[in-house]
Amino acid sequence: MSPVNVAPIALPQRAATFPKNAWYVACTADEIDAKPLGRQICGIHMVFYRGVNNQVAALDDFCPHRGAPLSLGKVCEGKLVCGYHGLEMGCDGKTVAMPGQRVGGFPTITSYAVEERYGFIWVWPGDRALADPATIQQLEWHNHPDWAYGGGLFHIGCDYRLMIDNLMDLTHETYVHASSIGQKEIDETPCKTSLEGEQVVTSRFMSGIEAPPFWKMALRGNGLTDDVPVDRWQICRFTPPSSVMIEVGVAHQGHGGYDAPNDKKAYSVVVDFITPETETSIWYFWGMARKFNPKDTQLTAQIREGQGRIFTEDLEVLELQQRNLSAHPERKLLKLNIDTGGVQARRMLDKMIERERQAMDAPTAAQAQAA
Amino acid sequence: MSPVNVAPIALPQRAATFPKNAWYVACTADEIDAKPLGRQICGIHMVFYRGVNNQVAALDDFCPHRGAPLSLGKVCEGKLVCGYHGLEMGCDGKTVAMPGQRVGGFPTITSYAVEERYGFIWVWPGDRALADPATIQQLEWHNHPDWAYGGGLFHIGCDYRLMIDNLMDLTHETYVHASSIGQKEIDETPCKTSLEGEQVVTSRFMSGIEAPPFWKMALRGNGLTDDVPVDRWQICRFTPPSSVMIEVGVAHQGHGGYDAPNDKKAYSVVVDFITPETETSIWYFWGMARKFNPKDTQLTAQIREGQGRIFTEDLEVLELQQRNLSAHPERKLLKLNIDTGGVQARRMLDKMIERERQAMDAPTAAQAQAA
Amino acid sequence: MSPVNVAPIALPQRAATFPKNAWYVACTADEIDAKPLGRQICGIHMVFYRGVNNQVAALDDFCPHRGAPLSLGKVCEGKLVCGYHGLEMGCDGKTVAMPGQRVGGFPTITSYAVEERYGFIWVWPGDRALADPATIQQLEWHNHPDWAYGGGLFHIGCDYRLMIDNLMDLTHETYVHASSIGQKEIDETPCKTSLEGEQVVTSRFMSGIEAPPFWKMALRGNGLTDDVPVDRWQICRFTPPSSVMIEVGVAHQGHGGYDAPNDKKAYSVVVDFITPETETSIWYFWGMARKFNPKDTQLTAQIREGQGRIFTEDLEVLELQQRNLSAHPERKLLKLNIDTGGVQARRMLDKMIERERQAMDAPTAAQAQAA
Repeated sequence: MSPVNVAPIALPQRAATFPKNAWYVACTADEIDAKPLGRQICGIHMVFYRGVNNQVAALDDFCPHRGAPLSLGKVCEGKLVCGYHGLEMGCDGKTVAMPGQRVGGFPTITSYAVEERYGFIWVWPGDRALADPATIQQLEWHNHPDWAYGGGLFHIGCDYRLMIDNLMDLTHETYVHASSIGQKEIDETPCKTSLEGEQVVTSRFMSGIEAPPFWKMALRGNGLTDDVPVDRWQICRFTPPSSVMIEVGVAHQGHGGYDAPNDKKAYSVVVDFITPETETSIWYFWGMARKFNPKDTQLTAQIREGQGRIFTEDLEVLELQQRNLSAHPERKLLKLNIDTGGVQARRMLDKMIERERQAMDAPTAAQAQAA
Repeated sequence: MSPVNVAPIALPQRAATFPKNAWYVACTADEIDAKPLGRQICGIHMVFYRGVNNQVAALDDFCPHRGAPLSLGKVCEGKLVCGYHGLEMGCDGKTVAMPGQRVGGFPTITSYAVEERYGFIWVWPGDRALADPATIQQLEWHNHPDWAYGGGLFHIGCDYRLMIDNLMDLTHETYVHASSIGQKEIDETPCKTSLEGEQVVTSRFMSGIEAPPFWKMALRGNGLTDDVPVDRWQICRFTPPSSVMIEVGVAHQGHGGYDAPNDKKAYSVVVDFITPETETSIWYFWGMARKFNPKDTQLTAQIREGQGRIFTEDLEVLELQQRNLSAHPERKLLKLNIDTGGVQARRMLDKMIERERQAMDAPTAAQAQAA
Repeated sequence: MSPVNVAPIALPQRAATFPKNAWYVACTADEIDAKPLGRQICGIHMVFYRGVNNQVAALDDFCPHRGAPLSLGKVCEGKLVCGYHGLEMGCDGKTVAMPGQRVGGFPTITSYAVEERYGFIWVWPGDRALADPATIQQLEWHNHPDWAYGGGLFHIGCDYRLMIDNLMDLTHETYVHASSIGQKEIDETPCKTSLEGEQVVTSRFMSGIEAPPFWKMALRGNGLTDDVPVDRWQICRFTPPSSVMIEVGVAHQGHGGYDAPNDKKAYSVVVDFITPETETSIWYFWGMARKFNPKDTQLTAQIREGQGRIFTEDLEVLELQQRNLSAHPERKLLKLNIDTGGVQARRMLDKMIERERQAMDAPTAAQAQAA
């Protein structure tokens, strides 16, 4: 039998698990106040810093001189100076200067579309020509006198979609957060999922129940008694690629529930931005914007601490769930009623990823003409 | 040349290194008294818990709903409740209930044959149809008024067979445990290996020697002087898949050695159950059952602490031996007289593994008929 | 279509990144005073110890009996005794004895050419027939009454060539070591690179500058004022495979600079031996030999501590540079004037590696004759 030339074996290309042409929260505004920040976003090592006029820039964290990470450098007069040999990088990825060198021919590194808004730095890891800042999600509560906000950042070893699932199915509160926000009525009350434009919305309304400990604390924080029956609501809103805003709250029963006046309820929005670091790890920006007693900074600290403790309870289950799924990629998971929100969210994401794949495979206009 | 379709490349299947159709110690009985226990056994993530009537169950540690590990849950009325969304799992791997769901069509997860006996939980990671509890090794000393037992558990990064080798060749005591149980007479006294039914037995008898420090302590523990010449014995009994029981002891010289009356000797059995976690890591259950002064709980504690300290000395050599063997899989090791016990044990294991492989490859009765 | 036999897929062999037929510093002399030392050099796990007459030996760290690392053993009467079962190994890799065994047929393990010189143990990881101790680099300052030496050892996760680059381009001092030895004049003063026999030499001379803090300390250490203008020099000498000796110092201006008399300058040699552990990690032996005030042991300690602190600043940048280069092997780095020293050094190394590759591929004399 004659020998056969076999082309180099490429491992089967895994399908991408996240869209790249989308706005992700990269960091909070104060994380880059003092010096550059190196952070991996969607598999790309990026450096974030403030250039001229405090304008935020995002670049490959890779000095074109010798490959040192630019995030170890510092910012001088708006230019990012490499901490190894002093190359000065502009916010467009072009080298501005280097001691004793002509830099005209230096290769350009990738710069990413980036915006500062609502206290967060947003980055678009894909094609910057497609990045439209107008499509960044609006956060009405930011710097609004009726609202107060507190939050934090976790690093978790799981696919970002597991966290979306988690937040779109709050029945887990009954089991994971039994001592704070969980209660059996969540399980017992069916939820409803619908599409509202570009959002997936899963909502659940409970009536005449006892408030769980976290919400008793919140009621007291709004000057309300905590020992009367309440109505409770959870309205989870997924917006692609990976934000989940959850309207949550309780109202003294008999005042209209979700629509009760502000002095009869404690109303908040749980804020969740889930940014893929790699395919199996995330930067999880969590917080709570509350629409009651906004000037009470001690209450803000108390809620932030409580929320941080509660959300910590999700870490172990998410990371071990990831371990199980990585070990058994062949197993199909169930998609129950309660999972509908997550399932719809994944469907949206799959479409975005597929569109990106097709755009990459399509011939460019020039190529099409040549053919 | 025309293109050639090449089938997906499968990495060459390594031969299994452990039999799966065998009883292994999974944990001690008290490790699952309070809540479920997640533990990897023979490469399988399992959850162990006590169901109805405290009956032990072992299942895949994988919730059929979303893949969360069931070991993070809790047991309610004999059912294992997933700690993520409350799915209730039965001990047969079938979902019993889930809040708000019909569970009839839920997929079944694997349940494993499991038995509680002699203070240990025994699991059969392979085909449960072949699991016969009558074949679990008998431990005569358990709950026997003449005996006392103390032990512990180590996690070690080595192939389980390296630990079997270690225990079947006690010349290493002279070098690894020089200050406690080692002495030059072990090296100088030849050992004898034989097959006794399903056991490999390697034995060594020393006469008229000084007892090493650990055994002096044991003599005193039995009310005997420690400054007279003794006879010492070591009878290592390997039983597949991976237990090694070692009869050990010393007797005042001139009273019959191994057969001396109980008030002239200190007689014990070193208990070793070696359970593969992966191909290169183990759960090592060690202990000592002694047949003297059994009511002295302080002596039990003292012996347990001494044994733990001694067995800790093996960890580094085993893990670095594994590093060396992994780096040089091509190197053939020597098989000397002193290694005969380990070599015979491996021969038994190879046969078991080969039988399992053939059974897997063999056509089923139905397939054979169809052909 | 008929089936096609495909040969087993071999991953493409990466080219070696370091020569093996060369002398490397394996450890300092005092690291093997008490007991054997296990250390990986050029990808080989070796054991170093002192045999008969304190003669140093280097062997595969792999006992031919059961693969245990010999470095866990001890030396008895000049023989290395395995810490597992007592095999006695000779410094030629041949087993000398083992309790109760005839060892004539035991396989030989590899022994490496090794020399003790200048307070270091030097090893030749390649073909020992080619190892000529006369080619070990001479260190004139060792045990010389005019000189004092202090140094240390770092383990760093980077390709050894990144450290060579680092030391052959001292413009990084301005950025990485800004508070100790860096100053803008380094950047502003061009360097010159030349070949001197087997050495690559990159030098820079600065005139009439202020001494940076480390050198002010050194001037005071030689009884000189530190507040006058100085001349400063840096002469980096790379010798294959991976030593970089850097003549450094400052002299009060107007006394001849580099050639000034000893009582007008502080003159030292930075000593760097960079030994590959693996392709992406190194043992970095650093130190400073100074030719002033050699009896002041307190000054030696002070300089050693300062140098250790300064060199620690390189670790993070080197390890993250390695991370970047490993992630982007396709990116070509720039080679500027300041990089010439490193580029020339790599060229020498590439030639050595290529010669070794050709020697391996060449038929032996016997094979050539047979063909």
